[in-house]
Amino acid sequence: MIRFYNGKILSFAGGVHVDDNCELWVKDDEISYVGPAAEEKPEFEREIDLNGDVIMPSFKNAHTHTAMTFLRSYADDMPLQDWLEKQVFPMEAKLNGDLLYEMTRIGIMEYLSSGITASFDMYFHNDDYVRANIDCGFRTVICSALNDFDKDPDNVEREYLKFNNYHDLISFCLGVHAEYTTGRDRLQFMSDLVHKYKTPFFAHNSETQNEVDSCLSRNHGKTPTEVFEEMGLFDYGGGGYHCVYLSEHDIEIFRERKLWVVTNPSSNLKLASGIAPLCRYMEEGIPLAIGTDGAASNNALDMFREMYLAAVLQKYLLKDAAACDPYKVLEMACVGGARAMGREDCDDIAVGKKADLIVINMARPNMQPVHNIPKNLVYAGSKENIRMTMVNGKILYEDGKFYIGEEPESIYEKATKELEKIMK
Amino acid sequence: MIRFYNGKILSFAGGVHVDDNCELWVKDDEISYVGPAAEEKPEFEREIDLNGDVIMPSFKNAHTHTAMTFLRSYADDMPLQDWLEKQVFPMEAKLNGDLLYEMTRIGIMEYLSSGITASFDMYFHNDDYVRANIDCGFRTVICSALNDFDKDPDNVEREYLKFNNYHDLISFCLGVHAEYTTGRDRLQFMSDLVHKYKTPFFAHNSETQNEVDSCLSRNHGKTPTEVFEEMGLFDYGGGGYHCVYLSEHDIEIFRERKLWVVTNPSSNLKLASGIAPLCRYMEEGIPLAIGTDGAASNNALDMFREMYLAAVLQKYLLKDAAACDPYKVLEMACVGGARAMGREDCDDIAVGKKADLIVINMARPNMQPVHNIPKNLVYAGSKENIRMTMVNGKILYEDGKFYIGEEPESIYEKATKELEKIMK
Repeated sequence: MIRFYNGKILSFAGGVHVDDNCELWVKDDEISYVGPAAEEKPEFEREIDLNGDVIMPSFKNAHTHTAMTFLRSYADDMPLQDWLEKQVFPMEAKLNGDLLYEMTRIGIMEYLSSGITASFDMYFHNDDYVRANIDCGFRTVICSALNDFDKDPDNVEREYLKFNNYHDLISFCLGVHAEYTTGRDRLQFMSDLVHKYKTPFFAHNSETQNEVDSCLSRNHGKTPTEVFEEMGLFDYGGGGYHCVYLSEHDIEIFRERKLWVVTNPSSNLKLASGIAPLCRYMEEGIPLAIGTDGAASNNALDMFREMYLAAVLQKYLLKDAAACDPYKVLEMACVGGARAMGREDCDDIAVGKKADLIVINMARPNMQPVHNIPKNLVYAGSKENIRMTMVNGKILYEDGKFYIGEEPESIYEKATKELEKIMK
Repeated sequence: MIRFYNGKILSFAGGVHVDDNCELWVKDDEISYVGPAAEEKPEFEREIDLNGDVIMPSFKNAHTHTAMTFLRSYADDMPLQDWLEKQVFPMEAKLNGDLLYEMTRIGIMEYLSSGITASFDMYFHNDDYVRANIDCGFRTVICSALNDFDKDPDNVEREYLKFNNYHDLISFCLGVHAEYTTGRDRLQFMSDLVHKYKTPFFAHNSETQNEVDSCLSRNHGKTPTEVFEEMGLFDYGGGGYHCVYLSEHDIEIFRERKLWVVTNPSSNLKLASGIAPLCRYMEEGIPLAIGTDGAASNNALDMFREMYLAAVLQKYLLKDAAACDPYKVLEMACVGGARAMGREDCDDIAVGKKADLIVINMARPNMQPVHNIPKNLVYAGSKENIRMTMVNGKILYEDGKFYIGEEPESIYEKATKELEKIMK
């Protein structure tokens, strides 16, 4: 058991609140006690003096392609289509399992240094991807990326069954890459799976105006959301990644179906896609979560960047400095992300929840003075404030050091070696 | 003397380049050698193994109000006028020299942790401000903030003479707060000073559409830039802070006069002011630098945030993922800032330049893999990458620790105590 004491606890039940003079115990993979210092204490393996720092639920990265770290700063500053067709797709064709394993580990390290403890990932080579996550001790939910180029669509069902009964850190969710890459036949194939397993469905959705326009012309005036809805893909919930350009009717569908909007503000800026109208979605009561997207388009995997942008871009978009509640943005990053990926068991601090926790170092100048901790986190927070990241009861990152089974330098070296093989 | 070896040197002369197998020596406050490992070496106080890391010219914060850290996360999420009139101005009226001193030290710590070695500052209580900078060993250029509320306008000239002959780390530049706070009489007073000392002039300029509109109606259709130009304030150069809404004629004046545009992307987003058209300014050959603005409006003092936004907001604004050269953005942050504030002596790495340097920790996951170092810095860099910050030949920050004459906890405690006095 691990004991955290002498600090503040930030949690979300009933709205963001910060409690003083509380302590928190972790037993195995769960939070076993939250409250005032207990009279009788069990034996602890380790007692951690928070020294006034804040312990809180970790961030969850609700949309990403973790191994795309392999393309970080490789092909920036290009028009979107050129970027995809001339750089990303040819390189992805060369991506193999060994390289993906190493690049996933680099992505996981970046997550940990940013206080992220779980990813909602969509990419290739899932066996190697899962191996990297388990080796590091990281939590992930894979979303299948079915599309017309898949040679073995039946693999989705095999992986669904396999990875949902594999390891406590791993789960698998049904999805397609996007409407524009997945024809009606394969969407019907996916809809059959959704109904067979009565399970949510996710996809890239309305990331660019061009995507929506081309869908409208292909589908007799229907948007991607309308196509998915028409085909019954949202019958058991789910949501969309990006959702920059939802129509009024799309918004109605998202609201009625309680579908998740997963926003990716940095990626949408850098690829010149646009700004998702998050405040509108909040007003409609649409559930929201935040993702970094992949390192090829962002280029960092940093929840502090995403939270800051999620908030301030709304102020810009609405020409109103009062727009967008930063408390809600913080909740999106911690609670929303967990729920979007179907992991309510790690969404907040409470007894019985998974111990997916971070400690915020308040003794850094960007957290001083302490007028308001949640606002400090959203508007001024950075990776330097992550003193500790715990996943499933295990400390994987502390004081700048990683505890994921191998030293960073060794991982970088292996990653570079694998990368060089395909760059030749 | 200090020797840096076994790393890469990033510098800007003739365009951004990264040189391998170079070393760099610092003697007193200057760079004394750059080149291949020398056969004969002098005695060094310290030899620093870069271990493959990058040493480069530091960032310069070309517009800020350092001590506004005292209002960080105190009054966010309000309409701009309410924010200023109901929160900022009443609190600033209570700000005293002791509090300003402590809050300046917190701001300086934040700068150092972000690789910033100099600030172009505009605020109050300059004696206490200067004392804080000298005590910490930090470089600053004060810009006078003359406006109609100043009780003692002659103090500008006294401070100009005093602080330009005071200390190697300190200089003083002429400026007014803004057109909208400074009437014609005081602008004329400032113009006389500019001509007397033949020196550049700076001011907040065209930060919001409202500021420009009100200026147009007050001044028979003239913009702030036109008013300043008409009164001869730009006869010896200078520039403007923010410059979100320059007119075509303003742009012509900036280009002809070689005036600096100092952009503050985060602050402009958070206060819903807008996005400065930096690519347009680049095309016109207008010199550019980057500032964080104060912590009340940003809320972080982090050059990585500003560089990222400077670049990606242009892509968004121009609906073109290829827009904005990140190499130029990096140069703005390092070289541009130094030159905007009249400190060409610390703008780049070269023998005889002031040793204002940073070491970038490449062994963090966000810098891996290493396809492109400048792009990694602009698109994925963060404060975790600042391994060392040197100002004027002295290491003030290294491996997360501050060497500014006092321990952080003691500074935070004093700052909080002073803050509590005025919050009562």
